[in-house]
Amino acid sequence: MKFTFVTLFPNLIEPYFQDSILKRAIDSNFIDYEFYNPRDYTTNKHLKVDKQMISGGAGMLMTPQPLFDCLDEIKSKNEDAYIIFPLAAAKPFNQNDAKRLAKKKNIVFVCGRYEGIDERVIEKYANEVFSIGEYILTGGELASTVMADAISRNVEGVLGNADSLVMESYENNLLEAPSFTKPENFQNLSVVKEFLKGNHSKISDLKNGLSICKTRYFRPGLVTNKKTK
Amino acid sequence: MKFTFVTLFPNLIEPYFQDSILKRAIDSNFIDYEFYNPRDYTTNKHLKVDKQMISGGAGMLMTPQPLFDCLDEIKSKNEDAYIIFPLAAAKPFNQNDAKRLAKKKNIVFVCGRYEGIDERVIEKYANEVFSIGEYILTGGELASTVMADAISRNVEGVLGNADSLVMESYENNLLEAPSFTKPENFQNLSVVKEFLKGNHSKISDLKNGLSICKTRYFRPGLVTNKKTK
Repeated sequence: MKFTFVTLFPNLIEPYFQDSILKRAIDSNFIDYEFYNPRDYTTNKHLKVDKQMISGGAGMLMTPQPLFDCLDEIKSKNEDAYIIFPLAAAKPFNQNDAKRLAKKKNIVFVCGRYEGIDERVIEKYANEVFSIGEYILTGGELASTVMADAISRNVEGVLGNADSLVMESYENNLLEAPSFTKPENFQNLSVVKEFLKGNHSKISDLKNGLSICKTRYFRPGLVTNKKTK
Repeated sequence: MKFTFVTLFPNLIEPYFQDSILKRAIDSNFIDYEFYNPRDYTTNKHLKVDKQMISGGAGMLMTPQPLFDCLDEIKSKNEDAYIIFPLAAAKPFNQNDAKRLAKKKNIVFVCGRYEGIDERVIEKYANEVFSIGEYILTGGELASTVMADAISRNVEGVLGNADSLVMESYENNLLEAPSFTKPENFQNLSVVKEFLKGNHSKISDLKNGLSICKTRYFRPGLVTNKKTK
């Protein structure tokens, strides 16, 4: 799986691939990444990539020409290029998307800056548009990194232990139950006693119950159609 | 506003503050940041900060002792410390949270790694818990950076032009209308013609209509209680 980032600010993204789990995944050739800078494609003699919005409104917008030329080149070099625009006004990205997209060969993220991107670029090139949550960020770089991270974890080989995927939040439409480690008692705070008794079917029932409580409290929408025994 | 990150991997966060808008905000003293590493607080002779989960389950969990000691020190040094845990199992972070938290003096993000954090740490220290979206990340570092970015934009002075906050998605519970810049016609793709005619009340009505359509399509939940004239 190769991630291609189209961005004016590669420095905001690249360090994230140079430490911890993603670095290991790159060193082991499970994932790869590359950058394209729209500024390298502008035909404007001042190397400008943004212009005032038509019809008023504060701020600048990324113009079509540099992005058209950049994305045409990417598509000509990568026939598997699957182009995603992180946008505030888009459908929410979720764990099922992360799993589905982990099967692609090349995902291209087009990162907006300033007030956004001329809509014609999105209309012409987007395979999908995603928002990572209901808040506004200074640009598309963080949103792209978030999606790349969530997708990478689902690329085969990236996480050593496939089991650790199974127990996680959202994997079964429930949030994860509270977890504890040793010591059993720390500064007078104890772990859930049942967890210590070694009756695995009881522990599993208890965890399932705690998961359902947590999901109902934080994400009532997720639990609507679940059995709540 | 000072952001304090408690993390085993400061390199995954720090570069984001060293370019673009957040760098400018730091250079102008609107925001500031610092790091604490739980590994510096462990009393374990091998400097371990994680242990096997109690009651089974794959993977390791961050143990209470290093985080208790680290957070005690942070609280003793910063009486305004407001402690947030980014977690998969938590309430969704949204734009209203970003605005509200922009008024705090010191926000502390505690970044989990491995399979998460012993629940006793969260119970004892959390002022709030947030999830940035319905997907799983390799750690709390990206989620903390996302929240810091969204909050920073709402700290007074960080964005030069306060107007640019007004027109954005979520600011009025609607997604932003499509935006265009020059040229009016590029490779036979034209901007919305009405945008060129200079009748501002008509443009404003049209944008509002486009916003409502976009919101209904991508985020039906947001638009339920809006007038849809």
